[in-house]
Amino acid sequence: MKIKKTQVAIIGAGPSGLLLGLLLNKQGIDNVVLERVTGDYVLGRIRAGVLEQGFAKLVREAGAAHNMDTKGEVHDAVEFAFNDTRIEIELTKLTGESVIVYGQVDITRDMMEERAKQGLETIYEASNVQPHDVKSDNPYITYEKDGEQFKLECDYIAGCDGFHGVSRQTIPDDVKTEYEKVYPFGWLGLMSDTKPINPHLIYAKTDRGFALASMRSQTRSRYYIQVPVTDKIEDWSDEKFWEEFKKRMPESARDKLITGPSIEKSIVPTRSFICEPLQYGNMFLVGDAGHIVPPTGAKGLNLAASDVATLYKIFTRVYKEGDKKCIEQYSPIALRRIWNGVRFSWWLTDLLHNFDDTKDEFDKKMETSEIEYFLKSEAGRKIIAEQYVGLPYEDLK
Amino acid sequence: MKIKKTQVAIIGAGPSGLLLGLLLNKQGIDNVVLERVTGDYVLGRIRAGVLEQGFAKLVREAGAAHNMDTKGEVHDAVEFAFNDTRIEIELTKLTGESVIVYGQVDITRDMMEERAKQGLETIYEASNVQPHDVKSDNPYITYEKDGEQFKLECDYIAGCDGFHGVSRQTIPDDVKTEYEKVYPFGWLGLMSDTKPINPHLIYAKTDRGFALASMRSQTRSRYYIQVPVTDKIEDWSDEKFWEEFKKRMPESARDKLITGPSIEKSIVPTRSFICEPLQYGNMFLVGDAGHIVPPTGAKGLNLAASDVATLYKIFTRVYKEGDKKCIEQYSPIALRRIWNGVRFSWWLTDLLHNFDDTKDEFDKKMETSEIEYFLKSEAGRKIIAEQYVGLPYEDLK
Repeated sequence: MKIKKTQVAIIGAGPSGLLLGLLLNKQGIDNVVLERVTGDYVLGRIRAGVLEQGFAKLVREAGAAHNMDTKGEVHDAVEFAFNDTRIEIELTKLTGESVIVYGQVDITRDMMEERAKQGLETIYEASNVQPHDVKSDNPYITYEKDGEQFKLECDYIAGCDGFHGVSRQTIPDDVKTEYEKVYPFGWLGLMSDTKPINPHLIYAKTDRGFALASMRSQTRSRYYIQVPVTDKIEDWSDEKFWEEFKKRMPESARDKLITGPSIEKSIVPTRSFICEPLQYGNMFLVGDAGHIVPPTGAKGLNLAASDVATLYKIFTRVYKEGDKKCIEQYSPIALRRIWNGVRFSWWLTDLLHNFDDTKDEFDKKMETSEIEYFLKSEAGRKIIAEQYVGLPYEDLK
Repeated sequence: MKIKKTQVAIIGAGPSGLLLGLLLNKQGIDNVVLERVTGDYVLGRIRAGVLEQGFAKLVREAGAAHNMDTKGEVHDAVEFAFNDTRIEIELTKLTGESVIVYGQVDITRDMMEERAKQGLETIYEASNVQPHDVKSDNPYITYEKDGEQFKLECDYIAGCDGFHGVSRQTIPDDVKTEYEKVYPFGWLGLMSDTKPINPHLIYAKTDRGFALASMRSQTRSRYYIQVPVTDKIEDWSDEKFWEEFKKRMPESARDKLITGPSIEKSIVPTRSFICEPLQYGNMFLVGDAGHIVPPTGAKGLNLAASDVATLYKIFTRVYKEGDKKCIEQYSPIALRRIWNGVRFSWWLTDLLHNFDDTKDEFDKKMETSEIEYFLKSEAGRKIIAEQYVGLPYEDLK
């Protein structure tokens, strides 16, 4: 078994792991990233594309923001549609902030390239990754690479390995509490190299179910429709998707829909999931490893970024000031923002999707009244706007 | 059978019926109020005590505001407490408006006296009140009084006769839709001639259940605690009430609690109920006859007042301008505001009460996050404030 050594071992080369690694390196904190699959495989995962400014600031600090800042698009508004009624939420007017539309794949690639440029170690195709002794002062990770056994000794482990990763499983069941809500529908997403139907995103609630007109750029559209969770991707030809999507757009937008062949098409299930706590000894869960939100409101990647922000501040204080006690602040600080993001995503999901017969007539009336009130009231629109652009990051005590 | 005649027959001498009658008289519209019980009995019903400014304005217009404006107390804030954390919602600072604390009994008495002073007819102890031919141009009401049979011919009937009244029952089942939500708890209320614990109302959510510290004046307190709906009033001695109430107040307020003998004590069930539509031919449902809210947020009487405001505008237009078609605006206009009030009351009820095991762990976390967010965010506090002081009344088209 070969022995390697680092300060912070990061499991997972997705956006959270890469962002954390680049930031730590800025502070001279040594880190190694372990990834189960190849870099190309990581880049094959089509995910979110709406970045909060807090996230963007971190990417700038990490030195990987050039493409984001030149190719990403600043959005100062987002639209909600209820059948044919359209309401614009003026994000910047209401909050002074905006969001950046830039694909998760692109930002991941930018950070991969920056990491390579800086000569930082990323070990792809590391199999059987397993954290050990995470409660001790000498945690380590074992893994295999090209048939060889490795032991990576470290001070801390950042579990950025997603919902199905090994990190969360390392926390014993009697120490953690898991909260979960599974929704009775999925999101069928289609990406195409077509001009988006609208300059801003449109979140559409319709009698036929929810739809989202999103984008990656002004030449690449990313559209979604709510489908039964039992639907298979084979059930949905491009033609069938376009037909249904068009019906769910407000009438005044339909003429602007440009269709084209899909370059990606997939169905994602929708769930809310949170693990408490996010710290176990010297191991920390970051992003999807610790929490999942339904995609409504685009909070998944952004909550991962605020986890990274908190952990980055903690490691900086640990290594610069020798204050090891501050690591206990990770879980409570991260979770406060996560629970709010989980609630916001759950609320939007609940309000915008069709739940068929799982809501009674009274609840449906409450829903209609809630939508009318929140979009008519300026305070209501501000509530949506300030959570959509992202609540401020909390500082360490 | 004796025959009487009026323009608007009002069933019910509660605050809605009296207010509508006084206002109509201002416009020279003849009206008669029929009441099943005695005036003293009506005044024995202890109810709400927080008036929106829209209501207060109507009472002024009705000429019955002298006591309200000299003895009522203007409240520019309301407090929420979560166990020992107290947060003040600055109503006036956030919305420019305030509420008036003045008992429903007092305002009812003021209006009764004004009605008597103006020599307007109120028929108390009218039994077997029954509307007839409400879909025709010649509706009428039959009733008995002192053993005699009467027929009251009229143009319109205002059903201000409460949840159990005959008016709503007159609308055939296939014409109306009733929405209902019954909550698994009641409010045990105690009134006492003691100085209130706090200058403002305190809505308290605690691990022991909800409590409300309300008042009628600075010498009369009105306190409530959430109790199981199965509890009987005999289960609650004054001593037991005071002991439990004190435990539910935030610690920093407890020392200020002054106890004393109850002058009234009762348990009210909590429910949301709405009947659609509120107009059937020439009959209109007003207040509790058409809708009920749980007392959280003090919307019941205030929603009755906005119904009166709308119906008053309609009758004024009908008799001044001869525009009979405008009566169709009553139900949609009234219901828009009612649904919002129903939703606000339901939301506050849901957030502040203890639902024992009917909420799962995820839902409880959502609740905690919602409370934290709404009270920390200024937009969140404004959402509460602007609904608490009451949304604006809608004009006729």
